[in-house]
Amino acid sequence: MIITLKKNASKEEAQKIINQIEQKGLHVTVIEGANYNVYGVVGDTTVLDEKVIAANPAVDNVQRVAAPYKKANRMFHPADSVIDVSGVKVGGNEDIVVIGGPCSVETRESLFQIAEGVAAAGAKMFRGGAYKPRTSPYAFQGQGTLGVQWLTEVREAYHMPIVSELMSIDKLQEFDENVDLIQVGARNMQNFDLLKALGTIRKPVLLKRGLSNTIEEWIMAAEYIMAGGNENVILCERGIRTFEKYTRNTLDLSVIPIIKQKTHLPIIIDPSHATGDWRLVESMSLAAIAAGADGLIIEVHNNPECAWSDGAQSLKPDKFKTLIEKGRAIAKVVGRGM
Amino acid sequence: MIITLKKNASKEEAQKIINQIEQKGLHVTVIEGANYNVYGVVGDTTVLDEKVIAANPAVDNVQRVAAPYKKANRMFHPADSVIDVSGVKVGGNEDIVVIGGPCSVETRESLFQIAEGVAAAGAKMFRGGAYKPRTSPYAFQGQGTLGVQWLTEVREAYHMPIVSELMSIDKLQEFDENVDLIQVGARNMQNFDLLKALGTIRKPVLLKRGLSNTIEEWIMAAEYIMAGGNENVILCERGIRTFEKYTRNTLDLSVIPIIKQKTHLPIIIDPSHATGDWRLVESMSLAAIAAGADGLIIEVHNNPECAWSDGAQSLKPDKFKTLIEKGRAIAKVVGRGM
Amino acid sequence: MIITLKKNASKEEAQKIINQIEQKGLHVTVIEGANYNVYGVVGDTTVLDEKVIAANPAVDNVQRVAAPYKKANRMFHPADSVIDVSGVKVGGNEDIVVIGGPCSVETRESLFQIAEGVAAAGAKMFRGGAYKPRTSPYAFQGQGTLGVQWLTEVREAYHMPIVSELMSIDKLQEFDENVDLIQVGARNMQNFDLLKALGTIRKPVLLKRGLSNTIEEWIMAAEYIMAGGNENVILCERGIRTFEKYTRNTLDLSVIPIIKQKTHLPIIIDPSHATGDWRLVESMSLAAIAAGADGLIIEVHNNPECAWSDGAQSLKPDKFKTLIEKGRAIAKVVGRGM
Amino acid sequence: MIITLKKNASKEEAQKIINQIEQKGLHVTVIEGANYNVYGVVGDTTVLDEKVIAANPAVDNVQRVAAPYKKANRMFHPADSVIDVSGVKVGGNEDIVVIGGPCSVETRESLFQIAEGVAAAGAKMFRGGAYKPRTSPYAFQGQGTLGVQWLTEVREAYHMPIVSELMSIDKLQEFDENVDLIQVGARNMQNFDLLKALGTIRKPVLLKRGLSNTIEEWIMAAEYIMAGGNENVILCERGIRTFEKYTRNTLDLSVIPIIKQKTHLPIIIDPSHATGDWRLVESMSLAAIAAGADGLIIEVHNNPECAWSDGAQSLKPDKFKTLIEKGRAIAKVVGRGM
Repeated sequence: MIITLKKNASKEEAQKIINQIEQKGLHVTVIEGANYNVYGVVGDTTVLDEKVIAANPAVDNVQRVAAPYKKANRMFHPADSVIDVSGVKVGGNEDIVVIGGPCSVETRESLFQIAEGVAAAGAKMFRGGAYKPRTSPYAFQGQGTLGVQWLTEVREAYHMPIVSELMSIDKLQEFDENVDLIQVGARNMQNFDLLKALGTIRKPVLLKRGLSNTIEEWIMAAEYIMAGGNENVILCERGIRTFEKYTRNTLDLSVIPIIKQKTHLPIIIDPSHATGDWRLVESMSLAAIAAGADGLIIEVHNNPECAWSDGAQSLKPDKFKTLIEKGRAIAKVVGRGM
Repeated sequence: MIITLKKNASKEEAQKIINQIEQKGLHVTVIEGANYNVYGVVGDTTVLDEKVIAANPAVDNVQRVAAPYKKANRMFHPADSVIDVSGVKVGGNEDIVVIGGPCSVETRESLFQIAEGVAAAGAKMFRGGAYKPRTSPYAFQGQGTLGVQWLTEVREAYHMPIVSELMSIDKLQEFDENVDLIQVGARNMQNFDLLKALGTIRKPVLLKRGLSNTIEEWIMAAEYIMAGGNENVILCERGIRTFEKYTRNTLDLSVIPIIKQKTHLPIIIDPSHATGDWRLVESMSLAAIAAGADGLIIEVHNNPECAWSDGAQSLKPDKFKTLIEKGRAIAKVVGRGM
Repeated sequence: MIITLKKNASKEEAQKIINQIEQKGLHVTVIEGANYNVYGVVGDTTVLDEKVIAANPAVDNVQRVAAPYKKANRMFHPADSVIDVSGVKVGGNEDIVVIGGPCSVETRESLFQIAEGVAAAGAKMFRGGAYKPRTSPYAFQGQGTLGVQWLTEVREAYHMPIVSELMSIDKLQEFDENVDLIQVGARNMQNFDLLKALGTIRKPVLLKRGLSNTIEEWIMAAEYIMAGGNENVILCERGIRTFEKYTRNTLDLSVIPIIKQKTHLPIIIDPSHATGDWRLVESMSLAAIAAGADGLIIEVHNNPECAWSDGAQSLKPDKFKTLIEKGRAIAKVVGRGM
Repeated sequence: MIITLKKNASKEEAQKIINQIEQKGLHVTVIEGANYNVYGVVGDTTVLDEKVIAANPAVDNVQRVAAPYKKANRMFHPADSVIDVSGVKVGGNEDIVVIGGPCSVETRESLFQIAEGVAAAGAKMFRGGAYKPRTSPYAFQGQGTLGVQWLTEVREAYHMPIVSELMSIDKLQEFDENVDLIQVGARNMQNFDLLKALGTIRKPVLLKRGLSNTIEEWIMAAEYIMAGGNENVILCERGIRTFEKYTRNTLDLSVIPIIKQKTHLPIIIDPSHATGDWRLVESMSLAAIAAGADGLIIEVHNNPECAWSDGAQSLKPDKFKTLIEKGRAIAKVVGRGM
């Protein structure tokens, strides 16, 4: 950590800061400049809060050198983590995993119809929202427990682990018992109480990046779950909010090499929510595979124009099948199975 | 609602869409253009989901004319709402309310010291975080129930209603019983289960705008609480996330006239979190008053350089007092007390 | 175009607006709603300025249905445009074109050394900045006319058309005579006088997207050049400005399918400026090819740590060669040569 | 400047970097950490390009301590600069200056009508665009030289210095001879050739912040003009681009105290372009004054619904007059005349 002091800071003020830091077992070195004095702090700086130090009126600026995450940090865990989702392995050199299914669970009948197409197309896991985060209180809010029940029946019938979004701590047990991969949605990425609760179980978590969260904040959200003891975290990019209006969000594929460089966790891509438009899903999926993604999560619906939510971004099963076939050819070029 | 159909859409596809809409009791008018056909939908369009309609391959585009909110909408509720927070009135032509206090509750002793300065300066409510949303799992997470207890003791001693942030549904009862104004933080603005839970009680809610949420999404979050039956909502702007690096967030003061035009709810401003820098707090506070804000929520600490969180943005009590004095002079010019 | 009038607008005000529009040869249809009246305007709405109509106090809102561009619009020009850059064809089903070279032209000697590696790696065009847009007036500003001269010598020696950035109208003739593909940089994307000047010549133009320009504004910038008579425009995505700090900009690859859907122009990708980090260039290049890009423009330097600008994002020639080899394999999968 | 080296960097690589820096007359101090080594660079670091240093593969990170600007830097020029615009003084403790006028010069007649109202309301300068940066090539592009001529006639008649936007170097002489305050528009803030040209004259320049430029880039643009020898620069905030859709741009009023802290230059606010909506102009103007702005530039039109551009954001003269009256009362509270 680098602390820049104003040149007019008194010796007493400066010494006070040094003492505060050294009391925590860290060491401080001073570099005197013309207009500023710079203090380099050596040691485990994750115990320091830069905002607290910056509060000192003598301080001009505080900058971290080391990343604020430990458990997720590739530096201390060089090997890729491979997450086992009820038998389907994600990450490392394992096959690229495709997850398909509807945005929300609608009826038992439609769910089974979609699952049949998704399984036939070659997907390895099945997704469906039983609890839905909707912008409007007047929109369909999900089938709830009944939806979770139907998903477990789909798993039974088609042998695909199921992925579903947990929105609230009070459903933690329901999800731990029934769902194979528990999704934390973008809007809950910094719902810290939910993250802490997920740290107490051992079920794999699919952690979506928040709409306007930096990569560092996203890794810190993973760190919350891991610090609690649950190291089974898969990261998922689903687009960030920008000024652009032709897409719902802006898909940031550069996160793929960055997440692999900074952390040891798997990274999968959600092109459906990122673009909000099924016509962009195939090309963004192929791009994600070429860039090194460990998986894809894609919305599939037999009848998108009648979907109860997000139909505009859902692929029909035949287009989903074509996508997987093209994806396999790209995966082969980058040395991965799919 | 305006639906634009591609010119090559078949009559059958078009008729199917019309039927879907008319089944919900709405009326459709067609305008034939050279390259598109446009359908105008008349009636209560809040029952329609634009994304579902946009999913139809014949549809090029869907645009709302009417706002998607009803309870919060000024159009259907022309008079200003005045929210009563345990006797302190917020909104309408009531006095501009100043809320002061530390970012987080630290010790009982420091809390009382700060409260004394805050009360003496002229603040009408007291704030303090007992549960803290922290980016890092290794940072101080708040005093919890003990912190809430100390806040109630401050209320007793200094006769200021207390404001504190609720992060999780499982503390709803604790807050309903002990806190006067329940804050929903920026990171939980779209924690819809929390919003629904707050709709079931009658305590006033201070709803902060999310870091990258549009004004419309923010009003829709208020609509969630109000749709549940709790109409005691106060909105709070605390800065949005932009590319700028000299401030922590960008304070968007244009929300003040916009919120007053679109809704009947009070709007208060948090310049401390918006800027992240105590040196900017006074000027942004005066600006907010000049622009018509109904209140300010400001971080105050006796010893900012020793604060356990966010000290850099905290004012000392004497600076807070000066701010209130200057603020009163501005308030007078715009016809408000303070 | 859809114009929404406030319900309380008088008949006189409404009729005045209708008259204004009908005087321009357009036709207006009215849809009466409960809270608003909606006017649909049929005809060539590019002659209307929505901001002028929105200025009318009776108007609540104006929304375009048709795109504001004509020459660049795929709707009126269904076939892909293929741009001929001194014999190298870009767009349609032509081979994916790779452009390589240093950020800035430094010395004649280093330029020839880099060109040798770039040509040997398989690039089809050579890039180099002779005039440099630098954030600081104290940074190296480019070799100017001498740099352009050296570039023409490289073209002679290695038979690669040359690409260089034009920053000011007063160099238009120099560039028209010497450069094969004239680049408009991101910071000048809305330098409308420069765009108009480029419309008067016939040299191909490489139009970079501005740091925070929407896709629609970018196409409108192309429309400026094309409206002047120069239809030889190639679009280039180079990342947009977001809140993310781990990359210099956020590369928006979804523009590839969108540009192909909305326009008939070729689209190439600049992963070097987008990411600002050579370690991300290869994966983003492969992603761009998989997504359907018509070309890549990549910074190459023999000695990045001694580059006079932007060394951090430059590849060494051997890494550039590897990138092209991998890219060819991806290109084959998506049915393109490279 | 702080340079962080990877721990596995070799001594030779490290020494090479030190040598490079010390050759430029700077001094380097090393702090050895557990996972990184940190180098502090002392001296005039404006001669170093951080991107060039960051290009070294041994380097993990480079961070500036000192600001990259000198001429504009308050640290080296503690007193406020007061800019004299043909007798009207801007900055320091001078009166807050109000500039009014139409977005674009339309006809000679309408210009004089508007000028009469603007002068009567109490404005000290008159604005009007003779050359207009328009997103569409099919929109009105300005009256050009004729427009400049009419503006000079207005100055004669109403004794107000005139402000107009220069878009291209080839009109530099025309503006230097005829215009009192030369505006650089947001889209040209990083048109470096234009900035350099303005450095060669002595006319005051009104430098608008770019749509998505950081405050630091904005000050560096001022530095370009000042480095050329023209120190008569006034900064103008006109809103930045964010994700919000209810306003055209987001007005960032926190720039007022920041610009005053970092630089010695005057700062004025343009609420008309920032909001794009005349109904927001008054409240944002009063906020700007309360926050310490040195001036306002506001669009005024006698007949906004017939304006040839940007009517929606123009005030009628009577509303402009009211705004000035209210503004004076606020100015008085913050100790300024107006």
